[in-house]
Amino acid sequence: MRPYDIILKKRNGKEHTKEEIEHLIEGYTKENIPDYQLSAWAMAVFFQGMTAHETAYLTTAMAESGDMIDLSKIKGFKVDKHSTGGVGDTTTLVLAPLVAAAGLPVAKMSGRGLGHTGGTIDKLESIPGFNVNLSRDEFIKAVNEKGVAVVGQTGNLTPADKKLYALRDVTATVDSIPLIASSIMSKKIAGGADGIVLDVKTGSGAFMKDAKQAQKLAQSMVDIGKKVGRVTTAVITDMNQPLGKAVGNSLEVKEAIDTLKGNGPSDLRELCLTLGSNMLLNANKANEFAEAYNLLEEILESGKALEKFKEFISAQNGNPEVVNNYDLLPEAEEIIEIKSPETGYISEINALQIGITAMEVGAGRENKEDKINHGVGIVLNKKYGDYVENDETLAYLHLDNPKQKEQAVNKILNSFTISQVKPGEKELIYNIID
Amino acid sequence: MRPYDIILKKRNGKEHTKEEIEHLIEGYTKENIPDYQLSAWAMAVFFQGMTAHETAYLTTAMAESGDMIDLSKIKGFKVDKHSTGGVGDTTTLVLAPLVAAAGLPVAKMSGRGLGHTGGTIDKLESIPGFNVNLSRDEFIKAVNEKGVAVVGQTGNLTPADKKLYALRDVTATVDSIPLIASSIMSKKIAGGADGIVLDVKTGSGAFMKDAKQAQKLAQSMVDIGKKVGRVTTAVITDMNQPLGKAVGNSLEVKEAIDTLKGNGPSDLRELCLTLGSNMLLNANKANEFAEAYNLLEEILESGKALEKFKEFISAQNGNPEVVNNYDLLPEAEEIIEIKSPETGYISEINALQIGITAMEVGAGRENKEDKINHGVGIVLNKKYGDYVENDETLAYLHLDNPKQKEQAVNKILNSFTISQVKPGEKELIYNIID
Repeated sequence: MRPYDIILKKRNGKEHTKEEIEHLIEGYTKENIPDYQLSAWAMAVFFQGMTAHETAYLTTAMAESGDMIDLSKIKGFKVDKHSTGGVGDTTTLVLAPLVAAAGLPVAKMSGRGLGHTGGTIDKLESIPGFNVNLSRDEFIKAVNEKGVAVVGQTGNLTPADKKLYALRDVTATVDSIPLIASSIMSKKIAGGADGIVLDVKTGSGAFMKDAKQAQKLAQSMVDIGKKVGRVTTAVITDMNQPLGKAVGNSLEVKEAIDTLKGNGPSDLRELCLTLGSNMLLNANKANEFAEAYNLLEEILESGKALEKFKEFISAQNGNPEVVNNYDLLPEAEEIIEIKSPETGYISEINALQIGITAMEVGAGRENKEDKINHGVGIVLNKKYGDYVENDETLAYLHLDNPKQKEQAVNKILNSFTISQVKPGEKELIYNIID
Repeated sequence: MRPYDIILKKRNGKEHTKEEIEHLIEGYTKENIPDYQLSAWAMAVFFQGMTAHETAYLTTAMAESGDMIDLSKIKGFKVDKHSTGGVGDTTTLVLAPLVAAAGLPVAKMSGRGLGHTGGTIDKLESIPGFNVNLSRDEFIKAVNEKGVAVVGQTGNLTPADKKLYALRDVTATVDSIPLIASSIMSKKIAGGADGIVLDVKTGSGAFMKDAKQAQKLAQSMVDIGKKVGRVTTAVITDMNQPLGKAVGNSLEVKEAIDTLKGNGPSDLRELCLTLGSNMLLNANKANEFAEAYNLLEEILESGKALEKFKEFISAQNGNPEVVNNYDLLPEAEEIIEIKSPETGYISEINALQIGITAMEVGAGRENKEDKINHGVGIVLNKKYGDYVENDETLAYLHLDNPKQKEQAVNKILNSFTISQVKPGEKELIYNIID
């Protein structure tokens, strides 16, 4: 089997066999097949696509290219939630204690990665003392005892995906649905989940700008899940404005705690309840969506989810008192009010620009080596559809470096579009595929 | 300008600017842009194509990536003939003295390359004493004094094309019309020709199996010629059976001499007269095709072309007596008659299989390091449309290594299809584009 023939086959629109895909991915991981053949193949895939069978073979081959995490010592059905990424996405911090309180074990391994804000791991590290570096045994013990643990990724997970993604990133072959779908799913499968709930975000602040493409990606991932024997659900959600109001690490921790207390932003609350309900359904902990949703609402309102959050923080050496005293969390030097230059309705908030501005003031990493500043970020005071008066506050910028002020303020201001007409309602949840 | 953006632009079907193509080719030649980006770009070109402008920019960028041969010291308009390659293509050996005798300077630099038989250089080296290694000055002097010289390629011609071709060869991106056209034309332009006549072969023994594709390639090369200021003519010709009867180096030299004497195979004679006429027209040495054709026929019949051939051989230290005594040429140990197993008409000769068999017995190179055996090869006794009786000779195999006999004989035999019905006439010249 020659890589040349595999490239030619895809170029000519034929379907790969399992063996061909395994040969390609194994050869690439072991450096027997060079980058220039994989990039030509990836470009051919961009144009010719892949069938559901091929995409599943690719997913499995990439999952098996490195360590496969064994979570079998954790009692119960393990459901992993994954978001395709957006601005101000604080769901995991709410969801983890919420579904754990409903009896679903949450064993989450999370990367740091690049982006507008840090990953879940970075956000948790805002909490004084919080330890994300548990050993595999400590991790499993924590989940079995407390029902929830979140740790940093260790080991050599999906090296084929890492290599292929880095190559796609410099050869304009990232935005291919089957390649994106297999990349995401390979990591979830190597991570050992029994079930997977995907939050596929679409809109200006998401990787998938277009709702139809998001729908295709969601379907492709659900199809992979079926073929590789992982119960998979995809929820397609709006990312045309930041989720919730906070964008920044400790700012999002506060927002998560607010939500667990019942005072969070309504969109964040609704999304967490929806994703959580799908996690319960996915694990057969409920028969119907409404049943699951009601159960989670009860848990939230009873304070059980907040209790679980404190328990979870304590178990990983964090200070649970943050829940009552936000001053324990890192704070920026200065809070700048950004005021509206006119009266009207918020008809648009450019989520991507808000996200990039947060990153630029230190809330996220542009490069792998960058250090996160946990205290800085942006908190919106107005969201889509809200009425704002002239000189009323649109947002707060939490800033440490005064040199960044002018540019950041302008960018945030420019992210808002104010119109004289009240804009139409926006849906948060577009579709659920399972 | 980032290579990433150039790849993305082509992937999305947009047209490159001159600067973008220059940036890509220069960066690639200087190894500032890696193989994996060029191969992804080439695959994007395979799917999205290139406009005539882009193809011309690419041609010029590749031509200018290395040495540009200066033929300005040669008096007159220099027309270079190029064939896209076929089986038994002996035209240059006939054409060079023929058009030189008509007053057109022939300054040919030729590579050795891979293939069914050697290149023109290898064929000429069958002639005892013939020297293909003239210095640039000797070469120019020979053309100015004798009207014709053929030498091996020296210097660093089109390194970008060499690098890109080698990459395309292993990434399934060879068969893209604009990439093939620019590859061929870049070499001709770097070679210093004023005018270019292209023999674009199509059929089972050609690189372009399909006549429509050949037509597109021809048009693309003529378009490039116009845009870069080189008078360019393309002749699309049949390669569904070997050209002439001889396939092999000294065997083709004999056939060329026969043709110069007026006793050559009719198809080889017709093709040489057609290509030669287009060379004269290209150089403005004639006003009409018929005028040029009649002139060349006269030159052939008068023996002037044969005289010019002898002069040409002498000038490059070869023994001109080969013209009168074929025994001076290398000969194979054994000549095996291959007889027809039945009576009928030849309805097909698989040119590619004949070519490969000739290569396998030593007439051509499979790898760059292989040595050519000048004496071996195949001579057809019957061609398409001919009637053959049972046990009559179909072909002669000229062989040195008896171990190769059985396989070679079988392959040659299998190349012939014999039918009871006389097949229709076949055209040799499909179209002329200028």
